[in-house]
Amino acid sequence: MNDMSPLRDPRLRRQEDQRKRILDAAIACFARGGFHATGMQAVCAEAGMSPGALYRYFPSKDAIIEAIVERDRADIPKQLTPLLGADDVIGALIECARQFLVGNLKPESLPMFPELYAEAIRNPAVREITMRCDEEVGDIIVRVLERGKALGQIDAALDAREATRFLMALTDGVLMRLLLEPATELEGLMPMYERSLRLFLAPPPASREAAE
Amino acid sequence: MNDMSPLRDPRLRRQEDQRKRILDAAIACFARGGFHATGMQAVCAEAGMSPGALYRYFPSKDAIIEAIVERDRADIPKQLTPLLGADDVIGALIECARQFLVGNLKPESLPMFPELYAEAIRNPAVREITMRCDEEVGDIIVRVLERGKALGQIDAALDAREATRFLMALTDGVLMRLLLEPATELEGLMPMYERSLRLFLAPPPASREAAE
Repeated sequence: MNDMSPLRDPRLRRQEDQRKRILDAAIACFARGGFHATGMQAVCAEAGMSPGALYRYFPSKDAIIEAIVERDRADIPKQLTPLLGADDVIGALIECARQFLVGNLKPESLPMFPELYAEAIRNPAVREITMRCDEEVGDIIVRVLERGKALGQIDAALDAREATRFLMALTDGVLMRLLLEPATELEGLMPMYERSLRLFLAPPPASREAAE
Repeated sequence: MNDMSPLRDPRLRRQEDQRKRILDAAIACFARGGFHATGMQAVCAEAGMSPGALYRYFPSKDAIIEAIVERDRADIPKQLTPLLGADDVIGALIECARQFLVGNLKPESLPMFPELYAEAIRNPAVREITMRCDEEVGDIIVRVLERGKALGQIDAALDAREATRFLMALTDGVLMRLLLEPATELEGLMPMYERSLRLFLAPPPASREAAE
Protein backbone atom coordinates (compact mmCIF):
# COMPACT_ATOMS: atom_id res chain seq x y z
CA MET A 1 0.00 0.00 0.00
CA ASN A 2 2.83 2.44 0.88
CA ASP A 3 6.51 2.18 0.12
CA MET A 4 7.51 3.96 3.31
CA SER A 5 7.84 1.79 6.41
CA PRO A 6 5.10 2.70 8.89
CA LEU A 7 7.69 2.56 11.66
CA ARG A 8 9.66 5.40 10.08
CA ASP A 9 6.82 7.69 9.01
CA PRO A 10 5.56 9.29 12.27
CA ARG A 11 2.09 9.91 10.85
CA LEU A 12 1.60 6.31 9.76
CA ARG A 13 3.09 5.09 12.99
CA ARG A 14 0.63 7.16 15.00
CA GLN A 15 -2.24 5.77 12.91
CA GLU A 16 -1.00 2.26 13.62
CA ASP A 17 -0.78 3.01 17.36
CA GLN A 18 -4.29 4.43 17.41
CA ARG A 19 -5.71 1.41 15.58
CA LYS A 20 -3.97 -0.89 18.05
CA ARG A 21 -5.33 1.13 20.98
CA ILE A 22 -8.89 0.83 19.65
CA LEU A 23 -8.62 -2.89 18.93
CA ASP A 24 -7.15 -3.62 22.36
CA ALA A 25 -9.94 -1.60 23.99
CA ALA A 26 -12.56 -3.40 21.91
CA ILE A 27 -11.16 -6.82 22.84
CA ALA A 28 -11.32 -5.89 26.53
CA CYS A 29 -14.97 -4.79 26.12
CA PHE A 30 -15.99 -7.78 23.99
CA ALA A 31 -14.34 -10.16 26.46
CA ARG A 32 -16.52 -8.73 29.22
CA GLY A 33 -19.83 -8.40 27.42
CA GLY A 34 -19.66 -10.12 24.04
CA PHE A 35 -19.78 -8.57 20.58
CA HIS A 36 -23.45 -7.86 20.46
CA ALA A 37 -24.03 -6.45 23.91
CA THR A 38 -21.09 -4.03 23.55
CA GLY A 39 -21.78 -0.60 22.06
CA MET A 40 -19.32 1.66 20.29
CA GLN A 41 -19.59 4.07 23.24
CA ALA A 42 -18.14 1.45 25.59
CA VAL A 43 -15.22 0.95 23.19
CA CYS A 44 -14.65 4.74 23.04
CA ALA A 45 -14.67 4.95 26.83
CA GLU A 46 -12.26 2.01 27.19
CA ALA A 47 -9.91 3.49 24.57
CA GLY A 48 -10.21 6.98 26.08
CA MET A 49 -11.18 8.41 22.70
CA SER A 50 -14.07 10.48 21.41
CA PRO A 51 -16.52 8.83 19.00
CA GLY A 52 -15.36 11.27 16.31
CA ALA A 53 -11.76 10.16 16.68
CA LEU A 54 -12.65 6.49 16.80
CA TYR A 55 -14.93 6.59 13.75
CA ARG A 56 -12.03 8.01 11.74
CA TYR A 57 -10.37 4.60 12.13
CA PHE A 58 -13.35 2.25 12.18
CA PRO A 59 -16.70 3.22 10.67
CA SER A 60 -18.64 0.48 12.52
CA LYS A 61 -18.47 -2.24 15.14
CA ASP A 62 -18.36 -4.79 12.33
CA ALA A 63 -15.24 -3.09 10.97
CA ILE A 64 -13.63 -3.47 14.42
CA ILE A 65 -14.59 -7.13 14.65
CA GLU A 66 -13.16 -7.76 11.18
CA ALA A 67 -9.91 -6.01 12.12
CA ILE A 68 -9.63 -8.08 15.32
CA VAL A 69 -10.06 -11.33 13.39
CA GLU A 70 -7.59 -10.12 10.76
CA ARG A 71 -4.97 -9.23 13.41
CA ASP A 72 -5.61 -12.35 15.49
CA ARG A 73 -5.24 -14.68 12.55
CA ALA A 74 -2.47 -12.74 10.82
CA ASP A 75 -0.06 -13.60 13.64
CA ILE A 76 -0.43 -17.35 13.21
CA PRO A 77 1.38 -17.84 9.86
CA LYS A 78 4.42 -16.01 11.28
CA GLN A 79 4.50 -18.47 14.19
CA LEU A 80 4.30 -21.43 11.81
CA THR A 81 6.99 -20.53 9.29
CA PRO A 82 9.91 -21.91 11.41
CA LEU A 83 8.23 -25.34 11.18
CA LEU A 84 9.33 -25.51 7.55
CA GLY A 85 12.96 -25.87 8.64
CA ALA A 86 12.56 -28.10 11.72
CA ASP A 87 14.67 -31.24 12.11
CA ASP A 88 12.02 -32.97 14.24
CA VAL A 89 8.82 -32.10 12.37
CA ILE A 90 6.31 -33.63 14.80
CA GLY A 91 8.12 -32.28 17.85
CA ALA A 92 8.16 -28.79 16.33
CA LEU A 93 4.44 -29.00 15.47
CA ILE A 94 3.62 -29.93 19.07
CA GLU A 95 5.74 -27.10 20.47
CA CYS A 96 4.11 -24.66 18.06
CA ALA A 97 0.63 -25.80 19.12
CA ARG A 98 1.62 -25.33 22.76
CA GLN A 99 2.67 -21.74 22.05
CA PHE A 100 -0.61 -21.11 20.21
CA LEU A 101 -2.61 -22.48 23.16
CA VAL A 102 -0.64 -20.54 25.79
CA GLY A 103 -0.99 -17.34 23.77
CA ASN A 104 -4.75 -17.74 23.44
CA LEU A 105 -5.21 -18.46 27.15
CA LYS A 106 -4.23 -14.96 28.22
CA PRO A 107 -6.98 -13.80 30.60
CA GLU A 108 -7.72 -10.64 28.60
CA SER A 109 -8.64 -12.54 25.45
CA LEU A 110 -10.24 -15.61 27.07
CA PRO A 111 -13.82 -15.53 25.86
CA MET A 112 -12.99 -14.17 22.40
CA PHE A 113 -12.20 -17.39 20.64
CA PRO A 114 -15.61 -19.12 20.63
CA GLU A 115 -17.28 -15.80 19.95
CA LEU A 116 -15.11 -15.24 16.87
CA TYR A 117 -16.24 -18.67 15.72
CA ALA A 118 -19.90 -17.88 16.35
CA GLU A 119 -19.48 -14.62 14.47
CA ALA A 120 -17.72 -16.31 11.56
CA ILE A 121 -20.66 -18.67 11.17
CA ARG A 122 -23.20 -15.84 11.17
CA ASN A 123 -21.40 -12.88 9.59
CA PRO A 124 -20.20 -13.36 5.98
CA ALA A 125 -17.47 -10.68 6.24
CA VAL A 126 -15.97 -12.24 9.38
CA ARG A 127 -16.32 -15.68 7.83
CA GLU A 128 -14.46 -14.59 4.72
CA ILE A 129 -11.52 -13.25 6.78
CA THR A 130 -11.50 -16.32 9.02
CA MET A 131 -11.53 -18.71 6.09
CA ARG A 132 -8.83 -16.77 4.26
CA CYS A 133 -6.51 -16.81 7.28
CA ASP A 134 -7.38 -20.45 7.96
CA GLU A 135 -6.40 -21.26 4.39
CA GLU A 136 -3.08 -19.51 4.84
CA VAL A 137 -2.40 -21.43 8.05
CA GLY A 138 -3.58 -24.66 6.41
CA ASP A 139 -1.28 -24.18 3.41
CA ILE A 140 1.76 -23.87 5.68
CA ILE A 141 0.82 -26.96 7.73
CA VAL A 142 0.26 -28.98 4.53
CA ARG A 143 3.81 -28.06 3.45
CA VAL A 144 5.13 -29.01 6.90
CA LEU A 145 3.39 -32.39 6.71
CA GLU A 146 4.61 -33.02 3.14
CA ARG A 147 8.15 -32.24 4.29
CA GLY A 148 7.70 -34.62 7.26
CA LYS A 149 6.54 -37.30 4.83
CA ALA A 150 9.59 -36.75 2.61
CA LEU A 151 11.83 -37.05 5.70
CA GLY A 152 10.14 -40.33 6.68
CA GLN A 153 8.88 -38.83 9.96
CA ILE A 154 5.22 -38.77 8.89
CA ASP A 155 3.15 -41.57 7.38
CA ALA A 156 3.54 -41.23 3.60
CA ALA A 157 0.00 -42.59 3.11
CA LEU A 158 -1.57 -39.70 5.05
CA ASP A 159 -3.56 -37.15 3.00
CA ALA A 160 -1.78 -33.95 4.07
CA ARG A 161 -4.76 -31.68 3.34
CA GLU A 162 -7.31 -33.72 5.31
CA ALA A 163 -4.80 -34.34 8.09
CA THR A 164 -4.22 -30.59 8.34
CA ARG A 165 -7.95 -29.87 8.67
CA PHE A 166 -8.09 -32.48 11.37
CA LEU A 167 -5.09 -31.11 13.28
CA MET A 168 -6.61 -27.61 13.18
CA ALA A 169 -9.92 -28.98 14.48
CA LEU A 170 -8.12 -30.87 17.24
CA THR A 171 -6.12 -27.83 18.34
CA ASP A 172 -9.18 -25.55 18.31
CA GLY A 173 -11.06 -28.15 20.36
CA VAL A 174 -8.33 -28.32 22.99
CA LEU A 175 -8.30 -24.52 23.19
CA MET A 176 -12.08 -24.43 23.69
CA ARG A 177 -11.91 -26.95 26.50
CA LEU A 178 -9.10 -25.06 28.20
CA LEU A 179 -11.20 -21.90 28.04
CA LEU A 180 -14.06 -23.64 29.84
CA GLU A 181 -11.87 -25.23 32.48
CA PRO A 182 -9.09 -23.57 34.47
CA ALA A 183 -6.23 -22.66 32.16
CA THR A 184 -3.80 -24.45 34.49
CA GLU A 185 -5.26 -27.68 33.13
CA LEU A 186 -3.15 -27.25 29.99
CA GLU A 187 -0.46 -29.39 31.60
CA GLY A 188 -2.91 -32.25 32.03
CA LEU A 189 -4.15 -32.09 28.46
CA MET A 190 -0.81 -31.55 26.68
CA PRO A 191 0.51 -35.14 27.14
CA MET A 192 -2.75 -36.39 25.59
CA TYR A 193 -2.43 -33.92 22.73
CA GLU A 194 1.15 -35.00 22.17
CA ARG A 195 0.34 -38.72 22.29
CA SER A 196 -2.47 -38.17 19.81
CA LEU A 197 -0.40 -36.13 17.37
CA ARG A 198 2.58 -38.50 17.44
CA LEU A 199 0.46 -41.60 16.85
CA PHE A 200 -1.73 -39.90 14.24
CA LEU A 201 1.18 -38.62 12.16
CA ALA A 202 3.82 -41.34 12.61
CA PRO A 203 4.46 -43.95 9.91
CA PRO A 204 2.93 -47.34 10.82
CA PRO A 205 5.23 -49.50 13.03
CA ALA A 206 5.87 -52.03 10.22
CA SER A 207 7.31 -49.36 7.89
CA ARG A 208 9.35 -47.93 10.78
CA GLU A 209 10.89 -51.35 11.38
CA ALA A 210 11.58 -51.80 7.66
CA ALA A 211 13.39 -48.46 7.61
CA GLU A 212 15.60 -49.36 10.58
CA MET B 1 -40.61 -34.12 41.27
CA ASN B 2 -43.97 -35.68 40.34
CA ASP B 3 -44.99 -39.31 40.48
CA MET B 4 -47.39 -38.96 37.58
CA SER B 5 -45.84 -39.34 34.12
CA PRO B 6 -46.00 -35.99 32.29
CA LEU B 7 -47.14 -37.88 29.20
CA ARG B 8 -50.28 -39.05 31.00
CA ASP B 9 -51.22 -35.86 32.86
CA PRO B 10 -52.66 -33.57 30.14
CA ARG B 11 -51.83 -30.42 32.09
CA LEU B 12 -48.18 -31.35 32.57
CA ARG B 13 -48.01 -32.54 29.01
CA ARG B 14 -49.28 -29.21 27.74
CA GLN B 15 -46.71 -27.38 29.88
CA GLU B 16 -43.99 -29.56 28.42
CA ASP B 17 -45.23 -28.85 24.87
CA GLN B 18 -45.29 -25.12 25.52
CA ARG B 19 -41.77 -25.14 26.94
CA LYS B 20 -40.58 -27.07 23.90
CA ARG B 21 -42.32 -24.63 21.57
CA ILE B 22 -40.60 -21.66 23.25
CA LEU B 23 -37.16 -23.28 23.27
CA ASP B 24 -37.44 -24.27 19.59
CA ALA B 25 -38.50 -20.72 18.72
CA ALA B 26 -35.64 -19.26 20.76
CA ILE B 27 -33.10 -21.54 19.05
CA ALA B 28 -34.36 -20.41 15.64
CA CYS B 29 -34.03 -16.75 16.71
CA PHE B 30 -30.63 -17.18 18.37
CA ALA B 31 -29.31 -19.06 15.35
CA ARG B 32 -30.20 -16.07 13.16
CA GLY B 33 -29.08 -13.23 15.39
CA GLY B 34 -27.15 -14.54 18.37
CA PHE B 35 -28.13 -14.54 22.03
CA HIS B 36 -27.45 -10.90 22.72
CA ALA B 37 -28.97 -9.29 19.66
CA THR B 38 -32.21 -11.28 20.10
CA GLY B 39 -34.96 -9.75 22.24
CA MET B 40 -37.71 -11.60 24.07
CA GLN B 41 -40.21 -10.02 21.65
CA ALA B 42 -38.60 -11.81 18.73
CA VAL B 43 -38.87 -15.12 20.61
CA CYS B 44 -42.57 -14.41 21.36
CA ALA B 45 -43.23 -13.65 17.67
CA GLU B 46 -41.42 -16.80 16.52
CA ALA B 47 -43.30 -18.94 19.05
CA GLY B 48 -46.60 -17.22 18.23
CA MET B 49 -47.17 -16.45 21.92
CA SER B 50 -47.91 -13.32 23.89
CA PRO B 51 -45.17 -12.03 26.25
CA GLY B 52 -47.50 -12.77 29.17
CA ALA B 53 -47.83 -16.42 28.17
CA LEU B 54 -44.12 -16.79 27.50
CA TYR B 55 -43.03 -15.19 30.78
CA ARG B 56 -45.12 -17.74 32.65
CA TYR B 57 -42.63 -20.37 31.46
CA PHE B 58 -39.40 -18.37 31.34
CA PRO B 59 -38.91 -15.22 33.40
CA SER B 60 -35.91 -14.02 31.35
CA LYS B 61 -33.77 -14.62 28.29
CA ASP B 62 -31.10 -16.06 30.57
CA ALA B 63 -33.63 -18.62 31.81
CA ILE B 64 -34.28 -19.62 28.18
CA ILE B 65 -30.56 -19.91 27.42
CA GLU B 66 -30.08 -22.07 30.52
CA ALA B 67 -32.98 -24.33 29.51
CA ILE B 68 -31.54 -24.71 26.00
CA VAL B 69 -28.14 -25.73 27.36
CA GLU B 70 -29.82 -28.08 29.81
CA ARG B 71 -31.90 -29.74 27.07
CA ASP B 72 -29.03 -29.82 24.57
CA ARG B 73 -26.67 -31.46 27.01
CA ALA B 74 -29.23 -33.69 28.68
CA ASP B 75 -29.65 -35.69 25.48
CA ILE B 76 -26.00 -36.69 25.30
CA PRO B 77 -25.79 -39.14 28.26
CA LYS B 78 -28.75 -41.09 26.81
CA GLN B 79 -26.87 -41.45 23.52
CA LEU B 80 -23.77 -42.69 25.35
CA THR B 81 -25.25 -45.33 27.62
CA PRO B 82 -25.28 -48.12 24.95
CA LEU B 83 -21.49 -47.75 24.77
CA LEU B 84 -21.27 -49.47 28.15
CA GLY B 85 -22.38 -52.76 26.57
CA ALA B 86 -20.56 -52.58 23.21
CA ASP B 87 -18.44 -55.50 22.00
CA ASP B 88 -16.16 -53.26 19.95
CA VAL B 89 -15.59 -50.36 22.33
CA ILE B 90 -13.57 -48.10 20.00
CA GLY B 91 -15.85 -48.77 17.03
CA ALA B 92 -18.90 -47.92 19.14
CA LEU B 93 -17.26 -44.71 20.40
CA ILE B 94 -16.55 -43.62 16.82
CA GLU B 95 -20.10 -44.38 15.71
CA CYS B 96 -21.48 -42.48 18.70
CA ALA B 97 -19.31 -39.46 17.89
CA ARG B 98 -20.55 -39.56 14.29
CA GLN B 99 -24.16 -39.46 15.49
CA PHE B 100 -23.33 -36.55 17.81
CA LEU B 101 -21.71 -34.63 14.94
CA VAL B 102 -24.52 -35.33 12.48
CA GLY B 103 -27.12 -34.29 15.06
CA ASN B 104 -25.36 -31.00 15.77
CA LEU B 105 -24.98 -30.17 12.09
CA LYS B 106 -28.70 -29.70 11.56
CA PRO B 107 -29.07 -26.33 9.78
CA GLU B 108 -31.48 -24.98 12.39
CA SER B 109 -29.00 -25.30 15.24
CA LEU B 110 -25.84 -24.55 13.27
CA PRO B 111 -24.45 -21.45 14.93
CA MET B 112 -25.58 -22.36 18.44
CA PHE B 113 -22.66 -24.49 19.49
CA PRO B 114 -19.83 -21.92 19.62
CA GLU B 115 -22.22 -19.37 21.08
CA LEU B 116 -23.14 -21.75 23.92
CA TYR B 117 -19.42 -22.05 24.58
CA ALA B 118 -18.93 -18.28 24.55
CA GLU B 119 -21.87 -17.92 26.91
CA ALA B 120 -20.57 -20.63 29.24
CA ILE B 121 -17.29 -18.77 29.57
CA ARG B 122 -19.00 -15.48 30.38
CA ASN B 123 -22.19 -16.44 32.22
CA PRO B 124 -21.73 -18.36 35.51
CA ALA B 125 -25.23 -19.94 35.40
CA VAL B 126 -24.69 -21.30 31.87
CA ARG B 127 -21.18 -22.37 32.82
CA GLU B 128 -22.48 -24.30 35.81
CA ILE B 129 -25.02 -26.21 33.68
CA THR B 130 -22.46 -26.85 30.94
CA MET B 131 -19.88 -28.14 33.40
CA ARG B 132 -22.41 -30.33 35.20
CA CYS B 133 -23.57 -31.94 31.94
CA ASP B 134 -19.98 -32.25 30.75
CA GLU B 135 -19.14 -34.05 33.95
CA GLU B 136 -22.02 -36.46 33.43
CA VAL B 137 -20.89 -37.17 29.86
CA GLY B 138 -17.28 -37.45 31.02
CA ASP B 139 -18.17 -39.96 33.75
CA ILE B 140 -19.82 -42.26 31.22
CA ILE B 141 -16.89 -42.05 28.78
CA VAL B 142 -14.43 -42.78 31.61
CA ARG B 143 -16.41 -45.95 32.39
CA VAL B 144 -16.45 -46.88 28.69
CA LEU B 145 -12.67 -46.44 28.48
CA GLU B 146 -12.08 -48.42 31.69
CA ARG B 147 -14.20 -51.20 30.27
CA GLY B 148 -12.22 -51.07 27.01
CA LYS B 149 -9.01 -51.33 29.03
CA ALA B 150 -10.35 -54.36 30.92
CA LEU B 151 -11.25 -55.97 27.58
CA GLY B 152 -7.75 -55.35 26.23
CA GLN B 153 -9.10 -53.09 23.47
CA ILE B 154 -7.71 -49.87 24.97
CA ASP B 155 -4.18 -49.17 26.20
CA ALA B 156 -4.17 -50.09 29.91
CA ALA B 157 -1.58 -47.38 30.58
CA LEU B 158 -3.91 -44.60 29.41
CA ASP B 159 -5.30 -42.27 32.11
CA ALA B 160 -9.04 -42.67 31.41
CA ARG B 161 -9.98 -39.27 32.89
CA GLU B 162 -7.42 -37.24 30.94
CA ALA B 163 -8.10 -39.28 27.80
CA THR B 164 -11.81 -38.49 28.16
CA ARG B 165 -11.18 -34.75 28.44
CA PHE B 166 -9.03 -35.03 25.36
CA LEU B 167 -11.63 -36.98 23.36
CA MET B 168 -14.29 -34.43 24.28
CA ALA B 169 -12.00 -31.59 23.17
CA LEU B 170 -11.23 -33.40 19.92
CA THR B 171 -14.90 -34.02 19.14
CA ASP B 172 -15.90 -30.43 19.95
CA GLY B 173 -13.07 -29.20 17.73
CA VAL B 174 -14.23 -31.32 14.79
CA LEU B 175 -17.78 -30.03 15.27
CA MET B 176 -16.57 -26.42 15.28
CA ARG B 177 -14.65 -26.93 12.07
CA LEU B 178 -17.61 -28.58 10.38
CA LEU B 179 -19.76 -25.61 11.35
CA LEU B 180 -17.33 -23.22 9.67
CA GLU B 181 -16.94 -25.30 6.55
CA PRO B 182 -19.68 -26.93 4.51
CA ALA B 183 -21.34 -29.67 6.54
CA THR B 184 -20.82 -32.11 3.68
CA GLU B 185 -17.15 -32.13 4.64
CA LEU B 186 -17.94 -34.50 7.51
CA GLU B 187 -17.14 -37.41 5.22
CA GLY B 188 -13.66 -36.02 4.58
CA LEU B 189 -12.91 -35.46 8.25
CA MET B 190 -14.41 -38.69 9.67
CA PRO B 191 -11.62 -41.02 8.42
CA MET B 192 -9.09 -38.71 10.11
CA TYR B 193 -11.14 -38.69 13.30
CA GLU B 194 -11.36 -42.46 13.21
CA ARG B 195 -7.64 -42.93 12.52
CA SER B 196 -6.83 -40.59 15.40
CA LEU B 197 -9.17 -42.27 17.88
CA ARG B 198 -8.06 -45.80 17.02
CA LEU B 199 -4.34 -44.99 17.29
CA PHE B 200 -4.82 -42.87 20.41
CA LEU B 201 -6.78 -45.50 22.32
CA ALA B 202 -5.27 -48.77 21.07
CA PRO B 203 -2.76 -50.73 23.15
CA PRO B 204 0.82 -50.29 21.85
CA PRO B 205 1.70 -52.72 19.00
CA ALA B 206 4.16 -54.69 21.20
CA SER B 207 1.48 -55.57 23.76
CA ARG B 208 -0.97 -56.41 20.95
CA GLU B 209 1.54 -58.88 19.52
CA ALA B 210 2.15 -60.38 22.98
CA ALA B 211 -1.59 -60.91 23.39
CA GLU B 212 -1.94 -62.65 20.02
